[in-house]
Amino acid sequence: MTQRQKTISGFSKLSKRGKIKWIVENFFRDPEHVMHELKSYWLDNEDHQKILDEISENTISNYHLPFGVAPNFVINGRTYCVPMVTEESSVVAAAASGAKFWMNRGGIHAEVSDTVKLGQVHFFYRGDRSVLIETFEDLKAELRADTSEMAANMEKRGGGVIGVELKDFTSEMDDYYQLFVSFQTCESMGANFINSVLEQFAKTLIAFYTRKNIEVEVLMSILSNFTPDCLVRTWVECPVGELGLFKGGIDAETFARRFCQAVNAAEIDIYRAVTHNKGIFNGIDAVVIATGNDFRAIESAGHAYATESGKYCSLSHCTIEGGMFRFSLQLPIAIGTVGGLTSLHPIARRSFELLEFPDSRELMMIIAATGLAQNFAAIRSLVTTGIQDGHMRMHLGNILKTLKASDEEAEHVKSHFNGRQVSYGAVRDYLHEERARSSAR
Amino acid sequence: MTQRQKTISGFSKLSKRGKIKWIVENFFRDPEHVMHELKSYWLDNEDHQKILDEISENTISNYHLPFGVAPNFVINGRTYCVPMVTEESSVVAAAASGAKFWMNRGGIHAEVSDTVKLGQVHFFYRGDRSVLIETFEDLKAELRADTSEMAANMEKRGGGVIGVELKDFTSEMDDYYQLFVSFQTCESMGANFINSVLEQFAKTLIAFYTRKNIEVEVLMSILSNFTPDCLVRTWVECPVGELGLFKGGIDAETFARRFCQAVNAAEIDIYRAVTHNKGIFNGIDAVVIATGNDFRAIESAGHAYATESGKYCSLSHCTIEGGMFRFSLQLPIAIGTVGGLTSLHPIARRSFELLEFPDSRELMMIIAATGLAQNFAAIRSLVTTGIQDGHMRMHLGNILKTLKASDEEAEHVKSHFNGRQVSYGAVRDYLHEERARSSAR
Repeated sequence: MTQRQKTISGFSKLSKRGKIKWIVENFFRDPEHVMHELKSYWLDNEDHQKILDEISENTISNYHLPFGVAPNFVINGRTYCVPMVTEESSVVAAAASGAKFWMNRGGIHAEVSDTVKLGQVHFFYRGDRSVLIETFEDLKAELRADTSEMAANMEKRGGGVIGVELKDFTSEMDDYYQLFVSFQTCESMGANFINSVLEQFAKTLIAFYTRKNIEVEVLMSILSNFTPDCLVRTWVECPVGELGLFKGGIDAETFARRFCQAVNAAEIDIYRAVTHNKGIFNGIDAVVIATGNDFRAIESAGHAYATESGKYCSLSHCTIEGGMFRFSLQLPIAIGTVGGLTSLHPIARRSFELLEFPDSRELMMIIAATGLAQNFAAIRSLVTTGIQDGHMRMHLGNILKTLKASDEEAEHVKSHFNGRQVSYGAVRDYLHEERARSSAR
Repeated sequence: MTQRQKTISGFSKLSKRGKIKWIVENFFRDPEHVMHELKSYWLDNEDHQKILDEISENTISNYHLPFGVAPNFVINGRTYCVPMVTEESSVVAAAASGAKFWMNRGGIHAEVSDTVKLGQVHFFYRGDRSVLIETFEDLKAELRADTSEMAANMEKRGGGVIGVELKDFTSEMDDYYQLFVSFQTCESMGANFINSVLEQFAKTLIAFYTRKNIEVEVLMSILSNFTPDCLVRTWVECPVGELGLFKGGIDAETFARRFCQAVNAAEIDIYRAVTHNKGIFNGIDAVVIATGNDFRAIESAGHAYATESGKYCSLSHCTIEGGMFRFSLQLPIAIGTVGGLTSLHPIARRSFELLEFPDSRELMMIIAATGLAQNFAAIRSLVTTGIQDGHMRMHLGNILKTLKASDEEAEHVKSHFNGRQVSYGAVRDYLHEERARSSAR
């Protein structure tokens, strides 16, 4: 075997084939086979493949996630079939089940309170603080003037810079201030617009105070992913009696009480809150990915928003008042319906068509409603049958696939494990014995 | 046009083709074409496609994300080429660049402090509190006894239930207690094992107190995704002078100071912290997805861990002491290297092979190191050239693809926008004029 070479210089400059060759030869036991496999995942449509290759860097193949749909989402009286992309089993089934449950109980309600995006110029001002405060209005005028051309297009669409604040952090770091800037970016997520404006603001800021012989050092200029005023609220409600009867013979009143207590537990205890919110993001991220948006941005903003009360807690809330069951979710969701991958990724485009081309506010509501439906269905399982019932059935299916069980073997194993504890080891051992038995026959 | 039908009953029971047919006929303007397109993304290998189809529910096609690699990761002296899956441009390039920077400066260091997983049985105990406390040791023995068979396989591998605590939340919700259970799950993420044990614990708990005529109501039993003792730390360090010279002629001392100040800003201000941590997860999630793990679990635990000090702040930290620059990241990462998608997803399997089959502790370190390298490269850009420089070049490339610019047109546009402000509108307008000009020629 030749000496393997694990480090490399100039890798990014290799062709795609060159990259694959280096990787398979130095890291894989069967280079030919792996090269063939990696290539087999390329799309037949070369244009589409080129788009995918250039979305990211050092790309050698495609990673597939299942593209599924959750029908029967009635949101504000309009019906949607929601595209979802997730690697976790039960997520799409749960969202669809939650949506269908509420379809006949008034549907899911949603509203967007605002869509403000934010950015910051972080800087050190090493002069007289009172001068900074006195000159701030003049500075603002100059910041506006120097970005007027840059903002013209966004303003035509009704967006632009909507406010510039000065924030003083000098009690926490010497000379540290921020220009804290708010934006409307209409249908786009707005990252490039915001960052470009901020970088120009930084230049103007330096020039402005240099003319006054005051030293300003800009540390960095970048958007903030924490967008507590880019906020969507979604809720479901119905008289308790209309909730119906649940698995295990649980009546509507008992269900409503237990459901609310489960949500309450996630308001009390961080160990429960994290899992509770994780379930909400199971639904949210699946739609975010399907529509070509950035789930890390939405996760970060959402989890930080979960600390707004002073401690990390549930993003959803439940009340029973005057006989009404009400379950709601509120969180920031900063997304775009133009720009980025939304129109570039071939399936993200189809997701938009499936949703009948929502604008960004409508998409915020669809995403949040999916998180709510997901959370409803998950908690419903938890407080009625428990989640292992359904999970273990799916888990068994996955194990059987890994073990390459035939349909006949799968039947055998499923009937054997009905009511028994499922684990990879137990299934493997049982299947092994079964195979030994049948070959001995 | 026929009446469209937007809601449906029994959708999940339709065949895959039946599902696609219903969707394209009711939601798309060109059903034939869309059906063909959705099918065109299926894998040629029918077994692989079946695996993907059954990972999730209501699946109709595959969603592709680019599969890329970041070479030159030296972690604890061992060299890795890290598989990454992300839809965001610059992420893989940044991680690779951060890794290469540190490759010649001692590499990246990492250590796992522990791998404890957690679960909870939430219950209401409606009896004398002192009896609960007095009987708890007896209960524990019974919990262990009733799950001994279930845990036998995990114990053989060195794992199992490692502790059961009683938590009292009655000051926050009437009668509310938890069994707070800690686990070692070895190479698996352990969700199914944990949830199965907890559901058995719940049954035992009820039986135990029913025998004493005390009412216990179990609310729910489920793992916790908050795993502050499943913790990995990763860091880089070198004498300040060895950091070298940076873009814009910034010397090592200035760079080190500015870099630390930028990290410090994310410790002070939540608006900066959210974006800072989002960047860390850009790196982390890309490896988590590539290895078939669950990024929502890791996001939730990580962001909640960012509030450990009492307020949401940076997960990474930077110091300059005695002439040493030291940059570190610590967070919980609960993953598996067996079970779930890890061995089921065809490319996740290849990711493991590329990483030379790490165990779960090693994979935790690789994932964390990728987050650190990513964060280093992002902050390096922010405090030196600014991020728009590189971003706008990539952004322009994406816009040109969307506008289907020919190579010749792309050349034209790129030279025109060199130094000019890039926006979709500006590029579209310029390209439009260019096309008008050339057709008039």
